Amino acid sequence: MKPGASDEQIQAVVDKVEAAGSKAHISRGEVLTLIGAIGDQEHDQRIADSAVPSMPGVDKLMPILKPYKLASSQIKAGERSVFDIGGRKVGGDHFAMIAGPCTVESRDQLLVSADAMKAAGATMFRGGAYKPRTSPYSFQGLGQEGLRLLQEAKDRTGLPIVTELMDVRDVEAVCEVADVIQVGARNMQNYTLLSEIGRSGTPAIIKRGLSATLEELVMAAEYILKEGNEKVLLCERGIRTYEPAYRFTLDLMAVPVLKEMTHLPIIVDPSHAAGRRDLVPSLSLAAAAVGADGIIVEVHPDPDEAICDGPQQLRLEDFPAYIEQVERAAAVAGKQLSTAAV
Amino acid sequence: MKPGASDEQIQAVVDKVEAAGSKAHISRGEVLTLIGAIGDQEHDQRIADSAVPSMPGVDKLMPILKPYKLASSQIKAGERSVFDIGGRKVGGDHFAMIAGPCTVESRDQLLVSADAMKAAGATMFRGGAYKPRTSPYSFQGLGQEGLRLLQEAKDRTGLPIVTELMDVRDVEAVCEVADVIQVGARNMQNYTLLSEIGRSGTPAIIKRGLSATLEELVMAAEYILKEGNEKVLLCERGIRTYEPAYRFTLDLMAVPVLKEMTHLPIIVDPSHAAGRRDLVPSLSLAAAAVGADGIIVEVHPDPDEAICDGPQQLRLEDFPAYIEQVERAAAVAGKQLSTAAV
Amino acid sequence: MKPGASDEQIQAVVDKVEAAGSKAHISRGEVLTLIGAIGDQEHDQRIADSAVPSMPGVDKLMPILKPYKLASSQIKAGERSVFDIGGRKVGGDHFAMIAGPCTVESRDQLLVSADAMKAAGATMFRGGAYKPRTSPYSFQGLGQEGLRLLQEAKDRTGLPIVTELMDVRDVEAVCEVADVIQVGARNMQNYTLLSEIGRSGTPAIIKRGLSATLEELVMAAEYILKEGNEKVLLCERGIRTYEPAYRFTLDLMAVPVLKEMTHLPIIVDPSHAAGRRDLVPSLSLAAAAVGADGIIVEVHPDPDEAICDGPQQLRLEDFPAYIEQVERAAAVAGKQLSTAAV
Amino acid sequence: MKPGASDEQIQAVVDKVEAAGSKAHISRGEVLTLIGAIGDQEHDQRIADSAVPSMPGVDKLMPILKPYKLASSQIKAGERSVFDIGGRKVGGDHFAMIAGPCTVESRDQLLVSADAMKAAGATMFRGGAYKPRTSPYSFQGLGQEGLRLLQEAKDRTGLPIVTELMDVRDVEAVCEVADVIQVGARNMQNYTLLSEIGRSGTPAIIKRGLSATLEELVMAAEYILKEGNEKVLLCERGIRTYEPAYRFTLDLMAVPVLKEMTHLPIIVDPSHAAGRRDLVPSLSLAAAAVGADGIIVEVHPDPDEAICDGPQQLRLEDFPAYIEQVERAAAVAGKQLSTAAV
Repeated sequence: MKPGASDEQIQAVVDKVEAAGSKAHISRGEVLTLIGAIGDQEHDQRIADSAVPSMPGVDKLMPILKPYKLASSQIKAGERSVFDIGGRKVGGDHFAMIAGPCTVESRDQLLVSADAMKAAGATMFRGGAYKPRTSPYSFQGLGQEGLRLLQEAKDRTGLPIVTELMDVRDVEAVCEVADVIQVGARNMQNYTLLSEIGRSGTPAIIKRGLSATLEELVMAAEYILKEGNEKVLLCERGIRTYEPAYRFTLDLMAVPVLKEMTHLPIIVDPSHAAGRRDLVPSLSLAAAAVGADGIIVEVHPDPDEAICDGPQQLRLEDFPAYIEQVERAAAVAGKQLSTAAV
Repeated sequence: MKPGASDEQIQAVVDKVEAAGSKAHISRGEVLTLIGAIGDQEHDQRIADSAVPSMPGVDKLMPILKPYKLASSQIKAGERSVFDIGGRKVGGDHFAMIAGPCTVESRDQLLVSADAMKAAGATMFRGGAYKPRTSPYSFQGLGQEGLRLLQEAKDRTGLPIVTELMDVRDVEAVCEVADVIQVGARNMQNYTLLSEIGRSGTPAIIKRGLSATLEELVMAAEYILKEGNEKVLLCERGIRTYEPAYRFTLDLMAVPVLKEMTHLPIIVDPSHAAGRRDLVPSLSLAAAAVGADGIIVEVHPDPDEAICDGPQQLRLEDFPAYIEQVERAAAVAGKQLSTAAV
Repeated sequence: MKPGASDEQIQAVVDKVEAAGSKAHISRGEVLTLIGAIGDQEHDQRIADSAVPSMPGVDKLMPILKPYKLASSQIKAGERSVFDIGGRKVGGDHFAMIAGPCTVESRDQLLVSADAMKAAGATMFRGGAYKPRTSPYSFQGLGQEGLRLLQEAKDRTGLPIVTELMDVRDVEAVCEVADVIQVGARNMQNYTLLSEIGRSGTPAIIKRGLSATLEELVMAAEYILKEGNEKVLLCERGIRTYEPAYRFTLDLMAVPVLKEMTHLPIIVDPSHAAGRRDLVPSLSLAAAAVGADGIIVEVHPDPDEAICDGPQQLRLEDFPAYIEQVERAAAVAGKQLSTAAV
Repeated sequence: MKPGASDEQIQAVVDKVEAAGSKAHISRGEVLTLIGAIGDQEHDQRIADSAVPSMPGVDKLMPILKPYKLASSQIKAGERSVFDIGGRKVGGDHFAMIAGPCTVESRDQLLVSADAMKAAGATMFRGGAYKPRTSPYSFQGLGQEGLRLLQEAKDRTGLPIVTELMDVRDVEAVCEVADVIQVGARNMQNYTLLSEIGRSGTPAIIKRGLSATLEELVMAAEYILKEGNEKVLLCERGIRTYEPAYRFTLDLMAVPVLKEMTHLPIIVDPSHAAGRRDLVPSLSLAAAAVGADGIIVEVHPDPDEAICDGPQQLRLEDFPAYIEQVERAAAVAGKQLSTAAV
């Protein structure tokens, strides 16, 4: 409460707090009075959504509990989650290298890429069958045909598949192929999509929205976790800032700070942040050194002919040297590349 | 092309441009060479998505055409769109006052609000049956029951209804009641949702994403227009900035600049930007004075008991004085309050 | 303190608080303990600067006092400051129209402008003799010669002069001519400059830094007030955001929120935010309607020949119609144009 | 020029371009006409500052030359600058570890720190005698006495001294002690200060302003270089974004992008970005891995008793392990710690 809050004002807040189902505890100081509201996240949320913050005499709400519960690092007493995804370990001391082309374009393009990723030691294979595009005049992905080709790549290489889901009506089809569903930055707060992924049980990567706070990103994970799906990875992919020199500003501070907030693995996408191939290696080294649990990176057999995002995709022939250097940086942070268990 | 680009580099770009279906036109200057790509938005988009921007010798792409076509002010030769929505004019010299509670909470709350809005001369009535919430522990809206109550409010007052759609699977149900579908800021780039709204033919308000550029907002409208649905309003509702003193930063410059870009009506939501009732009147005056085509504002019969966003909702009893002052500011910008045709 | 803080941790904080000169008051709740630190802004600042925020067991500092004292609206019990500057009232119900060219370029340009401002009813006359420029290759202002011409304009029209100060070594020379010293956005946190202006006693306008928070802007004023100089105006001039469509994003929410924080008058600079003449009128109407205490705007007799910022300066011939429309918008917000007392 | 620009409009622009001293070259395409302006940065700046950008028929200015000349990587044909500062190499393959307390507080605190930095192998020693503080109620530095103590630390350890300059009137006194003058983020565009440092000839570190673009940062260096002072280091120290989870957002993409723009060495300040000791090690590893030419970090013998920024300063006893791990990360990027030549 503000200094000088009246007894009536204090009582009114107490009543509201108890109406929300919390237990109110008053503590009177010399200058100000503190009203504790003892309950869980649902009670707290009800109070935050209520008129309490703007009631007369109220100074501010000071949440003691984080608004997320299942994603919180407290729930695991500081232990970090380690998942098994298609036989690969993710999290902890394991560093996941998820690589592949931006978009599934053709059988040839996809299988050549998958073989090369397998050979170079990537942890998982990525490729988009459904593409969210700013312009309705852009290529929107191969859809079902793309999913079929991803299945073929998986059968052939054994690499787990990461692919994007955009429409709740495609959940079933995507889950048949995907080992990990990717939620794009623009869908990070598409709550109906998140809930359906939660119900599907398929592991998910949630990309941070273009201007999402870390807390909002963790809350998006909470939507999935709440449905009983525990395998969620969070992905930093660049945020919007005033700086015109690059497409997005890669926020690597997010990695250590998210690790403090949540037990979930944190990965980094250097390709979309940069939008330029030549920045990808140095940003990847930085991501590995800062302590990320993995990288999701775009690689293409012929970026100059790519249907989308060609300029940011690494060349297949540069990938083996790239992965080796990233491994060295990950080692400085105490991590080892995750590959299939033998 | 960069200064010093070779003939081979120039020819390679020309080939790419023609492969995209555009006609290439070379213009050689003393210092640099310019390659014109003559085509429409779809050709341009194909070139922008291709390797051209990163080909050797290429300096930068300078789009002559805007990436949007149907939303562009050029298509109307500078004339502004004026729509009829449920008997109310929107756009041009008409100022739309869209008001009502954040969320449909109960029959009483809704009908009392609707009657008051009607009496005070509001143009349309707003209320949410489906609510996108940052927390999965927050109230998520009354859903179908909310839609039913909105229908009752409409039958009773004759006011056109504005309500939010979040899930493509609800399009049909929402369109039965809504005169205008609202697309929330977090769904601004939910492209499958936009396309379905386009196909539905129901007029729509698109709220600007939390960090969407004006061009991205207009591109979102283009997704709807492309399906043949012409009645789209754009809504500025505050953007994310570094400033911690308010929830969002209301960007009123967006109003005149969007008017230059597009023929579509532009409205302003002062409630969500401020998050505080006491800032709403002055921001509303500013929005009207800057030339907005309308305001969408939250009003509640008992904000202290509101289930969500209570602190930002105007009190019903303050609304008549509010609307009158906003009318005066709109008049300075040459606009009149839009009401039902007699 | 965090839940579970030990008695030793609590005592350590109490000791630190008392070492800073504040009186500590402990209030133990069921879940957490609150330590009040009773002192003034200097004590609070000492605690904030100390190790207290990172001591074991400490959750966070919750300042009860604002970090500014003399600028705070509390010091005036909610009354707004009204100053007399060269016979013109500033603040309260008075609306100041401060107009003139960006830069002093020549005797002719300046005197023609000053005469026109006087005729149209402007409150004060502005013009820069010293110009902060991003590029060392840009024109840096006429300097001393510019000050001499400003004096001539003042002698001729009686309009108070507003001009920028950039270098502490020029304080004396500028104060001889200036009725109001302008502190540019890039110098908002040039603390030695602020302190010298404080000591000079000349009224000042402080422009908000490109990414300054409102609190930092008020703290900049506090540097001047602390030296005994009470006449400080704050100026919103556009902030940096991610939006590429305009030079800066004019933040009109700053006006009502600053009025809540401080008793000082708040003005708006629409010219620098827009960087384009055609946006200036609508932004000026919005600034007046939102409740600003004035506008500082650039007007030039021949903007096409201006040495700097030509594109954003209004044309002299458009100014009379402009000022009249702004007066109408200010009237909606309850203010009247400030002119010389008769 | 815009499509459809008239011959008169084209001629008017040509006239303006030539009035600015550039040679105009017209190139007419099928759709649009390009006017080349051939001159140097000063000519270009004159055109950019003129009415050209807003003349009828003009679409936009497309600078071919960068606005900076001496700082540009072109001037060195891609070779990177390597400086000798007090016997230490900076730039190229050399990694500079600049460490020391935020502020000079006492003889003991300073000399203990200096000895420890020397012993651990730091490249230079930092400490502030003049401190820019947001609040006028904060400690403002020991001033002259602080400089004297820095001289003592230098005499004792042989480490080059880095210290901040805030006021043009202190240039001479600071230059007597400093091997490198630090320009704080808030003074990055204090042009009179930059010019004086240029004239002093003392090497300088310029910290990036809180919301400065990379181009503005390089332009700040240009102010110093223009006066004939060639030894300028640029420092990324975190920018302002919407994210509330940390004090500033460290922008490590700035490192590779600045290296592309300029030949000057680029260093990183992890302490001010984080504002928290525990984030400093991981951010330092990332900075080294991304290719920075050095780090400037705060270390204190007793951070809990520090007068300012205690929470972000590393503990002296943790420094040897820290520097060793940073060396390993720098090695991944191909750099070696710079120490005194033997």
